Amino acid sequence: MFSLTVCDHIMIAHSFRGEEFGPAQRLHGATYAVEAEFHAEKLDHLQLLIDIGLAKTVLRKLLDTVDYSNLDDNPALTGINTTTEYMAFHIHGLLAAACRDGTLGVAGQKLAGLKVLLREAPTAWAAFEGPIG
Amino acid sequence: MFSLTVCDHIMIAHSFRGEEFGPAQRLHGATYAVEAEFHAEKLDHLQLLIDIGLAKTVLRKLLDTVDYSNLDDNPALTGINTTTEYMAFHIHGLLAAACRDGTLGVAGQKLAGLKVLLREAPTAWAAFEGPIG
Amino acid sequence: MFSLTVCDHIMIAHSFRGEEFGPAQRLHGATYAVEAEFHAEKLDHLQLLIDIGLAKTVLRKLLDTVDYSNLDDNPALTGINTTTEYMAFHIHGLLAAACRDGTLGVAGQKLAGLKVLLREAPTAWAAFEGPIG
Amino acid sequence: MFSLTVCDHIMIAHSFRGEEFGPAQRLHGATYAVEAEFHAEKLDHLQLLIDIGLAKTVLRKLLDTVDYSNLDDNPALTGINTTTEYMAFHIHGLLAAACRDGTLGVAGQKLAGLKVLLREAPTAWAAFEGPIG
Amino acid sequence: MFSLTVCDHIMIAHSFRGEEFGPAQRLHGATYAVEAEFHAEKLDHLQLLIDIGLAKTVLRKLLDTVDYSNLDDNPALTGINTTTEYMAFHIHGLLAAACRDGTLGVAGQKLAGLKVLLREAPTAWAAFEGPIG
Amino acid sequence: MFSLTVCDHIMIAHSFRGEEFGPAQRLHGATYAVEAEFHAEKLDHLQLLIDIGLAKTVLRKLLDTVDYSNLDDNPALTGINTTTEYMAFHIHGLLAAACRDGTLGVAGQKLAGLKVLLREAPTAWAAFEGPIG
Repeated sequence: MFSLTVCDHIMIAHSFRGEEFGPAQRLHGATYAVEAEFHAEKLDHLQLLIDIGLAKTVLRKLLDTVDYSNLDDNPALTGINTTTEYMAFHIHGLLAAACRDGTLGVAGQKLAGLKVLLREAPTAWAAFEGPIG
Repeated sequence: MFSLTVCDHIMIAHSFRGEEFGPAQRLHGATYAVEAEFHAEKLDHLQLLIDIGLAKTVLRKLLDTVDYSNLDDNPALTGINTTTEYMAFHIHGLLAAACRDGTLGVAGQKLAGLKVLLREAPTAWAAFEGPIG
Repeated sequence: MFSLTVCDHIMIAHSFRGEEFGPAQRLHGATYAVEAEFHAEKLDHLQLLIDIGLAKTVLRKLLDTVDYSNLDDNPALTGINTTTEYMAFHIHGLLAAACRDGTLGVAGQKLAGLKVLLREAPTAWAAFEGPIG
Repeated sequence: MFSLTVCDHIMIAHSFRGEEFGPAQRLHGATYAVEAEFHAEKLDHLQLLIDIGLAKTVLRKLLDTVDYSNLDDNPALTGINTTTEYMAFHIHGLLAAACRDGTLGVAGQKLAGLKVLLREAPTAWAAFEGPIG
Repeated sequence: MFSLTVCDHIMIAHSFRGEEFGPAQRLHGATYAVEAEFHAEKLDHLQLLIDIGLAKTVLRKLLDTVDYSNLDDNPALTGINTTTEYMAFHIHGLLAAACRDGTLGVAGQKLAGLKVLLREAPTAWAAFEGPIG
Repeated sequence: MFSLTVCDHIMIAHSFRGEEFGPAQRLHGATYAVEAEFHAEKLDHLQLLIDIGLAKTVLRKLLDTVDYSNLDDNPALTGINTTTEYMAFHIHGLLAAACRDGTLGVAGQKLAGLKVLLREAPTAWAAFEGPIG
């Protein structure tokens, strides 16, 4: 199995509901370093898993929907605790949809899987891995 | 599949038996940067894989049983070469037991898997991954 | 010259005023990985620059005044753009005061200098370095 | 499952054919930080997955066949775009062969799998994972 | 003293002349992770050392003059061994000129200093630090 | 000012005397990731600050005098608390002596300064910087 990973980051504000969160119930924020890992059984005739330039551009465009914002105000995230693990799932959903609809080319539609990992701090990170559709 | 990882570290002394180990047969030591990666199929209603604060506290408590010590003198490790791969397995065992007995809450008992990775140096690390029980 | 560095991190929300900031004028947030670097000409009789455990505890306490909060609502930061470079200066001020008043012991009062560095993202960081008083 | 990873790096020149590559069609180069991850179900009686010193030596020897060279001139890579994902596959092939033929000892012949990951830049990397033969 | 650092990277081919270089006399290449560190005594009224977005854009433009190329063919580098330390000096020169001529704004013309650091591998890097003119 | 840095690491056991050290009074150990940073005003005619291959070899040889050992048993360190800051100073002394006596060539004798930094854990490190003689 081949994998190719590209990285970017976002800087967001948010707050959590639930006593379990302690001080994180207050409005605070995070830099999420984002790693998008594409999986494929084969490379194409150019020895590419996916167009890496295109992957970076598409990832950037999708991240722009949440970057430099307060997630508490995002209609797509209403009533949801935007934990690191949930945001990995959310961004996985956006990127998987882009793969399915051909935005990342034919290779993007044939991916064996996709993993999105978000680093919230030097000592903690979360990920969601699954098929693209 | 979701994953959540928390990190900590320990600083231990030990020595190895067996000519294969060369100079590492002498008493020496290591900083092990420890990464505990929890796996789950689902998040709970708060969008949490596991209580991250609790996970850090429990991991710290378990690491205290070996931190700042000479592993050669540890009764639980008598006659065992405490290689990085073995120590990953050992800490996995401690953490898996804590998951099974409810120390990490109900979510900890439903984990799909657990991986413990120990970085011994910038250029070498080892891990053990398996179910919690 | 000797130096000793300890690390921690904070997760804050904030917004900036000024067209120069573009999308960062919106309420967003950041994880700041904080590195506090203490400078001294000499070590003490125990070969310590400063008590590292104490340094970590004091740094943590000072960071708690801004951690998990919206800097826009902090009275000590009213009307100030809390850029990464400014926050490095702000935390330097808090830590330098603790050094001067003996909170970090006698060694803390004799420091040759102090540098506070904040990493806001994998590709950007800022620092302030200066004497402690 | 156990894993053990050792790291090294190579510095190569190459160029790509295909409009998709844009400016990377020009002769350029890369530092590939190489991570070789060995997988095994069990450790041996010494608690070793594999002889780590031997693994580093063998990896170094195999990397020497491409290190400090122009991949465009390498007979083993004629007519092939030496993308990061392809080079991960190529080095996986060399290392898997060394495992099969006993160069890494008996433990090397019993490996459950092998993953080779190449970091081409702080924001991009690729890997190939598969059985040793 | 304040500092602000932004990062980028380039991928180049080159070769060295001189027996001291051993196998590096052959055409090979490198990924240089580039860190540009700007120094200033004061922040402006917006609490900025320099416009970070502008700094990233200008750095990118300057790096484009060498990125994805064979340095052996660069007229500005004819007859020069493009070692990591020399390339740090070369990029420092380009960036310092941009600071002097106002490309980075008024703040760029008042910088107290500039450091350019190039990481050639996980285990080696070089830098040049000096005034901007 | 130019700088060139090479890295290596050592794995040692030791214990500390003094109540201030708490649990670190017990025999334990550390991986020290070692960074040796050489400073020079000028590069030579080959555009080298120092022979990097030679620097790595000499550093390795010097580190061998403490690597894979219990520092408590080292005659050169008798009665000394081998804190990270002290060990940075100790290795600085060894490397500065090698520079002075010509082991690193003529360039090594003309260095403007030398910094040795030891990372003991992901969250703590220490350094000593000074002239070579």
